[in-house]
Amino acid sequence: MSTATLAKAPRAPQKGQQTKAVIIDAALSLAAQIGLEGLSIGAVAEITKMSKSGVFAHFGSREELQISVIREYHARFEQEVFIPSIKAPRGVPRLREIFQNWMKRTSTEIDSGCIYISGASEFDDRPGPVRDALVESVSIWQAAVLRAVEQAQSVGHLRADAEARQIAFEIHGLILALHYEARFLKVPGSIERAHAGFANILARSTPAVPPADAASPSASRLKSVG
Amino acid sequence: MSTATLAKAPRAPQKGQQTKAVIIDAALSLAAQIGLEGLSIGAVAEITKMSKSGVFAHFGSREELQISVIREYHARFEQEVFIPSIKAPRGVPRLREIFQNWMKRTSTEIDSGCIYISGASEFDDRPGPVRDALVESVSIWQAAVLRAVEQAQSVGHLRADAEARQIAFEIHGLILALHYEARFLKVPGSIERAHAGFANILARSTPAVPPADAASPSASRLKSVG
Repeated sequence: MSTATLAKAPRAPQKGQQTKAVIIDAALSLAAQIGLEGLSIGAVAEITKMSKSGVFAHFGSREELQISVIREYHARFEQEVFIPSIKAPRGVPRLREIFQNWMKRTSTEIDSGCIYISGASEFDDRPGPVRDALVESVSIWQAAVLRAVEQAQSVGHLRADAEARQIAFEIHGLILALHYEARFLKVPGSIERAHAGFANILARSTPAVPPADAASPSASRLKSVG
Repeated sequence: MSTATLAKAPRAPQKGQQTKAVIIDAALSLAAQIGLEGLSIGAVAEITKMSKSGVFAHFGSREELQISVIREYHARFEQEVFIPSIKAPRGVPRLREIFQNWMKRTSTEIDSGCIYISGASEFDDRPGPVRDALVESVSIWQAAVLRAVEQAQSVGHLRADAEARQIAFEIHGLILALHYEARFLKVPGSIERAHAGFANILARSTPAVPPADAASPSASRLKSVG
């Protein structure tokens, strides 16, 4: 998505793209602190020590600035949460990796805020392109979580009759509760509780007798022998 | 808490208190829509068709207006979620009643917004009396949920070795996920998923052999015979 944003200015020299990246980076930090709604060309000009017209030249409108920030946030979320999980084997190991990376990200954001969460409150009843960009971005990672749950079912790590959407819903709840209780209420032990909640979900969704499959150590040992 | 607010103006005539209640009611609707941060004496004056100085006379500052709104929200939350639950027997019936009333409230707020959720995003890193009032209010109902879980343990409906704070954390997660997915993403089936999540928590926390106690139907039958 961020590639698409950059592609919008094909004649801009390398330098222009670098400047734009610097502005988006500063705008993202600001949005994480004060919310997407707090973003303005003026505020971003101030923290980047640029002129308002300089910032404006890169985005054209406050809305375009907000959407660029959402795209950058999306790219980083993907980079930190999903890309590393691909190295883990399909099934519960990959799902666990996604959850742990997400938790790690959420824990960092206990100090800086999460625009997916604050943005949901700001834009839940404000239709328009900013809301659309947020919903699209959140929907993409929700689909990725759901896919990981379904993969864990198809390799036999999770019960086939478990409701994949239910599991994804409960995982989302754990992350939201972690963010709320750790960041807003500053309750100690929230990270441990999110971990324990994830373990509870797995415990009830694990088949009583795990089927012999490619992911189980004994099966792969047999394979390498045969 | 709302009684304390009203008590601050002991010499105000009945009429003044009524007017203040009308202003708080309008301010609460506005805050639920646009957030506590969007509240201003001017905006409230406009929707109540009063003069700015008239509204100002009742509150003295924007901050006092925001705090009055939080207190009113707290009073209504208590009235709708906790007070009716007291009629249900102690233990799981009362906990279930709290969860269902809370869900009902959250479902209504799918159209209007929840200041506990939007307020957490707005004030998570803005220290001051508004944040303090929000944290206090949220902490009071969290303690009430925890108490209900602990009661359910003490009457033997939930396992004594279950972590009460863990259960309360996961219940909070379900409500947050419901609000996020139903209100922001508009995902169908969110209410059913929150219900199913609550049932999952109870299922794993119910003792294998429920002890005979006053709340079990057979025990009370014996009592009325004896």
